[in-house]
Amino acid sequence: MTSKLELLTNFRIVLCQSSHPGNIGAAARAMKTMGLQDLYLVQPKKFPHTEASALAAGATDVLENAHVCETLAEALTGSAFAIGLSARKRQLSHELVDVRQAALQATGIAASQPVALVFGTEMSGLSNAELDLCQLLAMIPADPAFSSLNLAAAVQVMCYEVRMALLDGRMAIEPPDEPLATNDDLEMLYRHMEETLVQIGFLNPAAPGRLMQRLRRLYARARPEKEEVNILRGILRHTNEPQPPKGA
Amino acid sequence: MTSKLELLTNFRIVLCQSSHPGNIGAAARAMKTMGLQDLYLVQPKKFPHTEASALAAGATDVLENAHVCETLAEALTGSAFAIGLSARKRQLSHELVDVRQAALQATGIAASQPVALVFGTEMSGLSNAELDLCQLLAMIPADPAFSSLNLAAAVQVMCYEVRMALLDGRMAIEPPDEPLATNDDLEMLYRHMEETLVQIGFLNPAAPGRLMQRLRRLYARARPEKEEVNILRGILRHTNEPQPPKGA
Repeated sequence: MTSKLELLTNFRIVLCQSSHPGNIGAAARAMKTMGLQDLYLVQPKKFPHTEASALAAGATDVLENAHVCETLAEALTGSAFAIGLSARKRQLSHELVDVRQAALQATGIAASQPVALVFGTEMSGLSNAELDLCQLLAMIPADPAFSSLNLAAAVQVMCYEVRMALLDGRMAIEPPDEPLATNDDLEMLYRHMEETLVQIGFLNPAAPGRLMQRLRRLYARARPEKEEVNILRGILRHTNEPQPPKGA
Repeated sequence: MTSKLELLTNFRIVLCQSSHPGNIGAAARAMKTMGLQDLYLVQPKKFPHTEASALAAGATDVLENAHVCETLAEALTGSAFAIGLSARKRQLSHELVDVRQAALQATGIAASQPVALVFGTEMSGLSNAELDLCQLLAMIPADPAFSSLNLAAAVQVMCYEVRMALLDGRMAIEPPDEPLATNDDLEMLYRHMEETLVQIGFLNPAAPGRLMQRLRRLYARARPEKEEVNILRGILRHTNEPQPPKGA
């Protein structure tokens, strides 16, 4: 069975003229956590650099394989679609979408051709000349009063949205290791519980009200495991027939 | 008109025993870019610290107003729902969802009561005792081969998902500053274009094929502004009746 996540190899991250080597390293780590590997650096101020390696943590392989380029055009060679990230609305009107929409469009194209995600400098973002090489402009919808995401944080969010798009918007939840209680298990639990509550005088069988209904709903929401039902029934047994504490 | 974003005041970020003050500062910045303000620190190793302030950039107010607590229980005072972030599946089965689902659940509760988003240490995440104080476990669906997000990067993604949930999953796109071309503008453009293409011998009116249809689709996708249609028609005029270059 092939997974759509294989398309991650068709994505590259392009960082234009990054000032701080630490940000390059942190961006490499962010990429790798989401399964992206291809990093392109256009005129990085300092690279390679010990600070980049330190902040890459376990992602130094991404740095070692990074392509250092002279121009954005060079970094986009072979890419069919370039998405520029921007923190603000721009003068000349590119099509502007949020990063979630951008990721959806990008994954469609990445099914057959390479896609580039392009980030500008820490201080001023992408220049207009750089934006002219992009087909789409994407924004992280930040608070307008403080919209300055750290470069690596922006890379993290963008790569996260690409991965989520390839996962069709949700994580596959593995089936639980422990078997869930069956309907029979639960019905026996409720009968046992009801008997016990009558026995201890909490439930009046002549006027039961909606107590058992409420308890059923409570436990239903918890989706109990078989073993957990066993624990609850153990408690009920001890409530019916108090026993000395274990080890006493 | 009130915005759902006002509910951001009902969210708090709780960082448990963070080792690196830089991460606390970067987390404060990440929070503030998404409009969150309330930071709770449970036994931070070093706080306050110059490195935290440096990495907070413009979010030092979040640090200054941070609540330093002795225990997670203290940090959760008044909160009605605590979501623990985890990088891995845990032994004891909490309900486990991805951060997008967690954000949706959280915003429902935050409509009336405070919600806490709880992050563990950089090295080992949340302890089982800390998880016992949470009602829900949320994961960022990272690459299983390298799932170690930086703490502040995880805070960024979680806060981003909360903001996106309050924005109903998409950024409000402001209407364009420039008026779009009307249908009439576009029809006049296409007529002008067709005449010109005939005139220059590119389009054979006896066998037009689907050329005009393809051009219509191309320009429709671009959603042209009024001014851009004027530019295109200016080009067509010059194509029909070549003129000396301006200034010549």
